[in-house]
Amino acid sequence: MVGSVGNGLMDLGEREKAEPLPNEFDPKDIVDDGSLPDSNGVGTKEENGNSREIVLGRNVHKMCFAIKEPEADDEVTGEREAYMASVLARYRKSLIDRTKHHLGYPYNLDFDYGALSQLQHFSINNLGDPFIESNYGVHSRQFEVGVLDWFARIWELEKNEYWGYITNCGTEGNLHGILVGREVFPDGILYASSESHYSVFKAARMYRMDCVKVATLISGEIDCNDFKAKLLQNKNRPAVINVNIGTTVKGAVDDLDLVIQTLEENGFKDRFYIHCDGALFGLMMPFVKRAPKVSFKKPIGSVSVSGHKFVGCPMPCGVQITRMKHINVLSSNVEYLASRDATIMGSRNGHAPIFLWYTLNRKGYKGFQKEVQKCLRNAHYLKDRMKESGIGAMLNELSSTVVFERPKDEEFVRQWQLACSGNIAHVVVMPSVTIEKLDSFLNELIQKRSCWYQEGKASPPCLATDIGEENCFCSMHKK
Amino acid sequence: MVGSVGNGLMDLGEREKAEPLPNEFDPKDIVDDGSLPDSNGVGTKEENGNSREIVLGRNVHKMCFAIKEPEADDEVTGEREAYMASVLARYRKSLIDRTKHHLGYPYNLDFDYGALSQLQHFSINNLGDPFIESNYGVHSRQFEVGVLDWFARIWELEKNEYWGYITNCGTEGNLHGILVGREVFPDGILYASSESHYSVFKAARMYRMDCVKVATLISGEIDCNDFKAKLLQNKNRPAVINVNIGTTVKGAVDDLDLVIQTLEENGFKDRFYIHCDGALFGLMMPFVKRAPKVSFKKPIGSVSVSGHKFVGCPMPCGVQITRMKHINVLSSNVEYLASRDATIMGSRNGHAPIFLWYTLNRKGYKGFQKEVQKCLRNAHYLKDRMKESGIGAMLNELSSTVVFERPKDEEFVRQWQLACSGNIAHVVVMPSVTIEKLDSFLNELIQKRSCWYQEGKASPPCLATDIGEENCFCSMHKK
Repeated sequence: MVGSVGNGLMDLGEREKAEPLPNEFDPKDIVDDGSLPDSNGVGTKEENGNSREIVLGRNVHKMCFAIKEPEADDEVTGEREAYMASVLARYRKSLIDRTKHHLGYPYNLDFDYGALSQLQHFSINNLGDPFIESNYGVHSRQFEVGVLDWFARIWELEKNEYWGYITNCGTEGNLHGILVGREVFPDGILYASSESHYSVFKAARMYRMDCVKVATLISGEIDCNDFKAKLLQNKNRPAVINVNIGTTVKGAVDDLDLVIQTLEENGFKDRFYIHCDGALFGLMMPFVKRAPKVSFKKPIGSVSVSGHKFVGCPMPCGVQITRMKHINVLSSNVEYLASRDATIMGSRNGHAPIFLWYTLNRKGYKGFQKEVQKCLRNAHYLKDRMKESGIGAMLNELSSTVVFERPKDEEFVRQWQLACSGNIAHVVVMPSVTIEKLDSFLNELIQKRSCWYQEGKASPPCLATDIGEENCFCSMHKK
Repeated sequence: MVGSVGNGLMDLGEREKAEPLPNEFDPKDIVDDGSLPDSNGVGTKEENGNSREIVLGRNVHKMCFAIKEPEADDEVTGEREAYMASVLARYRKSLIDRTKHHLGYPYNLDFDYGALSQLQHFSINNLGDPFIESNYGVHSRQFEVGVLDWFARIWELEKNEYWGYITNCGTEGNLHGILVGREVFPDGILYASSESHYSVFKAARMYRMDCVKVATLISGEIDCNDFKAKLLQNKNRPAVINVNIGTTVKGAVDDLDLVIQTLEENGFKDRFYIHCDGALFGLMMPFVKRAPKVSFKKPIGSVSVSGHKFVGCPMPCGVQITRMKHINVLSSNVEYLASRDATIMGSRNGHAPIFLWYTLNRKGYKGFQKEVQKCLRNAHYLKDRMKESGIGAMLNELSSTVVFERPKDEEFVRQWQLACSGNIAHVVVMPSVTIEKLDSFLNELIQKRSCWYQEGKASPPCLATDIGEENCFCSMHKK
């Protein structure tokens, strides 16, 4: 009842009832270590050490900072401010620790936006289209368009031929690109390799598109033989294709030229729309000399990339670029904004473009090139040291994502915040990942591993189907 | 060509070529004042002073801060840092001015998150589901769940029966609520009043749902007679309904109880899903004693509200609450995150929940109540003073959105950042809008109006169809 909210706001979560504030917000305090669903019915179920399943159930409230109604005399005593400051100080401490032990997600955690903290006092909102003013004056379109121009230039699309916007994340870019594809070919079938980001399949479901999954090679790239076979089963309907410029798990780059060739040779000329999901690697590839080129000089429809990954940003964001001619089908006029809106979100975070603008300006093309080289070098170092130590590992050429044997201990996985899938885990070497950090991780892994796989105990899993026989060091494939 | 990016990054926009930095970023420098599309083919076309149309065309680059490649000696000379600092300082100055002259959008611009600036150094990302830990440790789920609990309690849904998340904006809430509705009733028709937010119709198009527009009363509320007629034309298919808790333009609150009654009396019992779009007013209504209640004790499916509106937040955000039982249909497991994902965006801004948590904790239920009362009082003051001055105006009971005669001069509209639609404009009285600000606005309006409508010149438009004869002061309806 609303009437009672003032009196009865729930206290801190169950755990906090006994002890007002935890010293650390370690995820392992929240996720059960056990293999069964926790008392709330949610948890990670582990079977045979291989198949892991998220069990749905009720929402978990073990650890949360409840909102407490201020006491009448709070303003006098300062109790409230003191309480909040202590929560924030401890939270900050835990963020420092969690940031230090972080290897699994492709986020560059190394940034300093101190110069921009002055802007946090403003409610900056880039409503609607970046290129058309709305009546709301507190925006950052000047920065947004500057950033978009930079990306359009990298992907070789003329200033007056592109349209784009700064998104909330890579997923929004995929949702947008695939929506544009569907509007261009309303009857199109969506093709995506099975290693595509899950947002691509989410889009198919949201948009009620028929979706065909295409097999992948061991590297994680799309298998164009299978793609051809699937295309030939649906010759009468146009194709909307998601091409991965760096898959989520293995960092594999689909062969864009081969995808286009496959389409054109099999009767799909002028009947396809390609969206390039460049979440992470879309921004790294332009700086690698021998990398195949993502370019609008090729018949592609859109490219998206995440801003919080390689660039680094306090919050998720992304860049979406498409062809102007496609966007007019999507636009609809929204008079009360005095703008048109061809974005997914409408209201958009106006701080993100300034963060991106700041870093792009500060580092420039050459700065990024240096960082990309450093990441690739460090990734090779990690992969080599793993293989020297008898740990199955793979690194795709041009990628900084090192895929390796999933650590047996979930606590270790959580400690280093590794992203896992089946028998494999990965480390994404970002500019914030130094050799020292890698060494510290490796030494711990090697030491732990010697316990997990002591003589007579369990043995490491076979990774041949995941990363190829030549990269596997299981008892069968060890040379 | 990528190879040339390093040397040839585009210079500052055309306007800046002659003059390196503008002193002010006034939107009127960017949008043409003229009534024809500008040289780039985009602009606001005005016909008969009434019908305004956004003309699509090429993207506008008149004003943008291009990314410039740093010079080799920049680090030594400090030129680059100096350039960026000067851009930012001027931008900040313009933000202060634009924030001061702001009345048209329902954003509370009055906040102080200084205590949180320490967190801007972290890449905080609430990946996937708020209630299930992912392996990424730099998150703010503890705060997010605290905020969600607070809202679920206000809307009377038990802790273990709700699901929700902090969205990027009100639009994401609508996209989510309508998607859940469609998943619950795949064959459902979407009904929404013609004064619903444009994102509702965008959702229908994205989701390939049949959509029926329902007429509105002059107040802006849904017309339940028309709703009944439309329902009876489609008796064989379930109904997904968007109910407005405060429409965008007039701040009208649909009569939720009457909507439910209309559905149940016309054969739709247990065959409907209601999403409540509470963008602005969803957070104000609980604090108004005589307001009809939005509550999950009624047969509704979801409620969304914006976080950057009444609460105030540096960037757009929102809260989405739905029933746990609905969400399981939407979830899919995403193993590599060790989480499931029933959100639209996947990666989510981890700062927004902390901003909301901070304000909710600081102000509490009673603090919001006081602010809501102040807003309603000030809105009445504005409406009364307008009518005393012979300006046609309307204020819905329970609303702080004052609708009035659209100012004749577009520069005035832009100066005060008024949102306009047809012959009407509105001011949304938020906590940051003081009596002094309203007076300063009113005095300017009255003074300008006496020029626009001097004897013999144009006369004010008739607003009878927009806000009712009793609120109109045109020559025909003036008493």
